[in-house]
Amino acid sequence: MDLTKYYTAFTTYLQAQDFKREPKNLYEPVDYILQLGGKRIRPLLTLMAADVFTGNYKTALPAAMAVETFHNFTLVHDDIMDEAPLRRGKETVHQKWDINTGILSGDAMLILAYQYFENYEPIIFRKLAQLFSKTALEVCDGQQLDVDFETRNDVTIDEYINMIRLKTSVLVAAALKMGAIVANVDDTQADLLYNYGLHLGIAFQLQDDLLDAFGDPKTFGKQVGGDIIENKKTFLYLKCLEIAEKVDAEKLQFFFNQKLEDNSIKIEEVKRIFEQNDIPNITTELIESYTNKAFDFLTDLNISDEAKQALVDFGNNLMNRKM
Amino acid sequence: MDLTKYYTAFTTYLQAQDFKREPKNLYEPVDYILQLGGKRIRPLLTLMAADVFTGNYKTALPAAMAVETFHNFTLVHDDIMDEAPLRRGKETVHQKWDINTGILSGDAMLILAYQYFENYEPIIFRKLAQLFSKTALEVCDGQQLDVDFETRNDVTIDEYINMIRLKTSVLVAAALKMGAIVANVDDTQADLLYNYGLHLGIAFQLQDDLLDAFGDPKTFGKQVGGDIIENKKTFLYLKCLEIAEKVDAEKLQFFFNQKLEDNSIKIEEVKRIFEQNDIPNITTELIESYTNKAFDFLTDLNISDEAKQALVDFGNNLMNRKM
Repeated sequence: MDLTKYYTAFTTYLQAQDFKREPKNLYEPVDYILQLGGKRIRPLLTLMAADVFTGNYKTALPAAMAVETFHNFTLVHDDIMDEAPLRRGKETVHQKWDINTGILSGDAMLILAYQYFENYEPIIFRKLAQLFSKTALEVCDGQQLDVDFETRNDVTIDEYINMIRLKTSVLVAAALKMGAIVANVDDTQADLLYNYGLHLGIAFQLQDDLLDAFGDPKTFGKQVGGDIIENKKTFLYLKCLEIAEKVDAEKLQFFFNQKLEDNSIKIEEVKRIFEQNDIPNITTELIESYTNKAFDFLTDLNISDEAKQALVDFGNNLMNRKM
Repeated sequence: MDLTKYYTAFTTYLQAQDFKREPKNLYEPVDYILQLGGKRIRPLLTLMAADVFTGNYKTALPAAMAVETFHNFTLVHDDIMDEAPLRRGKETVHQKWDINTGILSGDAMLILAYQYFENYEPIIFRKLAQLFSKTALEVCDGQQLDVDFETRNDVTIDEYINMIRLKTSVLVAAALKMGAIVANVDDTQADLLYNYGLHLGIAFQLQDDLLDAFGDPKTFGKQVGGDIIENKKTFLYLKCLEIAEKVDAEKLQFFFNQKLEDNSIKIEEVKRIFEQNDIPNITTELIESYTNKAFDFLTDLNISDEAKQALVDFGNNLMNRKM
C-alpha cells in the first residue's frame, strides 16, 4: 500500500483550506499549528480505511481533515495546560501569541472540525458527528485522568491502560472508523476497523513509553528520559513497582519524588532498576500482544487479502520504530 | 404567552441531566456552571419558537439544552480570558478550580452541546448542527474582535455593531431558529424568526451598554459604571466621540486612558459628557429602531396573531428593563 499517495492527497487538501480569514488574530494560529507538520497518521488512516473498502479515498478527505483539525486542537489546549514552550521544534501557539489566543483559536478549531462533516449527506453526517462527539469527549476524559494521575499514588495498571485508551487510542480508532463510515459499510465492519485501531493505538502509546526511556536519541523525536525527568507514572513505572522487590520499589519511588536540576544520575538509576526487573521485555511483550490483538480484528473484514496485508504492514511499520 | 411554562420545563429538563459522571474533576465544573442559574433567555426562545409553529415545545428541549450548554461554555472560557473572579455572584470555574480545569471543562461543554442534537433524526440533526457550528464560530469571531478592539483607537460604530452582532446576537437568533428547525418549518419562515432574534439581540446589547452607565443600581444586575471603569469602547463612547465638540471628545479620551483606584469622579464626568451630548437619547432611539426592525420580521410569519403578539410582548419586556 502506497502511503505517500494518501500523504500527498491529504497535504494538498490541507494546503487548499483557507484559514487566511478575519479576524486574523483568531485564524492565523489555526493556520500556524496545522502547517507545523507531523506524520499525519490519523488522517492517513481515515483515507486508508475508505480506500480498502471502496478504492476511493478522496471522498474521505473532509473527514480526514476533521480528525487532523481536532487532533491539533487538543495539542493547542494541552500545550497550554502543560505550559509547553515547544511543539515539533517550533513555538507553541500560546507561546508565540498568548494563552487567551490559544484558548480561543483552539475553540474555533474544535468547531471547524465539525464543519468538515457538512461535506456529507445527512445520514453519513450524523454518523460521523456522533462518533466524533463521543470520541472527542473520551479524549477530554483521558486528558483529565492523566492530570488526576499526577497527584495520585494508587494508580493501577488497568487504570493507566484505560487512560491511554481514552487519551490516545480512541482517536486512532475513530479515524479509521470514519473512513469506513464514509465508505458506507455496515456497522459491524466499521467496528472491526475501530477495534484494530484501538488496540494498535494502545500498543503505540506503550511503545512511546518504552522509547521514552530506552529509545535511540538519534531516531526518537523527543528527549530520551523525558517521562523519568517529569516523574510520569507510565506503564514501565507502574509495572516495575508491582513486581520489584522492596529495595528497588522504594528506590524508584524515591527518584519519582525528586525534581532535580541535573537528571543524568536519576535517568541512569531508574533505567537500571527497570532493566533489572525485566521491564523492557515485559513491555515489549505487552506491545506485541496488543499489536496481535489489533491484527485479529482484521480476520473478519470483507476486504481483499492484499488490503488486509497492507493494514498489517502499517501496524508493523508503526511498531518497528527503532529502539 | 406564559414564559414560566417554558422556564419550568427547561429547568426540569436541565435538572434531569446527569453530569455526576467520571472523571469528577471534568464534569463537576460543568454541573456547577449550568446550575448557577441566570434568566435562561436563549433556551426559552428555542422552546417558544417551536411552540408558536407547532404548539409543541417539549420536542425542542434538547436543542434548547444545546444552546444553554454552549452559552455557558462561552462564559467559562471568556471568564478565563477576562480574569473574572465572579459570575452571577458566585466564583467562576477557573477561580473555584483552576485555569486548566476551566479550559478542559469548557471544551467538554462545547462537545456536550453538539451531543444534544443526537436526539433528532438525520435531516433535522444536520440542520441544527450546521447552524450551531456557523453560530459558534461567529461567537468566537465576535469575542476575538472584542479583544482586538481593546487595543485599537480607530474602531468605527459599524465595526462595533458588527462585533456585538457576532458576540451576542447571532446566538439569540440561532436559538430561535433552532426551535423553528425542530418544528420543521421551511427555511424562509425560520429565517424570519432568526432576523427577529438578530435585531432584538443587537437592541438588547445596546441597552446593556446604556444601562451599564445609566441603569438603576437596584435593578441592574452588574456594577453601574463598569464599562467606564474598564475603558470599554461601547456604542455610547464611540457615538459621543463622533459627535462631541473637541473639548468633550478630548476629555472623554483622557478619561478612557486612565486606570484609577477611585473611579467615582471618572464615572460622574464621563456620564456628564454623555448627557451633554444627548447620548442617552440617541442610544434609546437606536435601541427602539433595532427593536422595531426586529418586529418587522414578524409580519410575514405564518403563525397566529396571538403568537405574533407574544413575540412582540417578549421583545418589549426584554427592552423595558428599568433605567
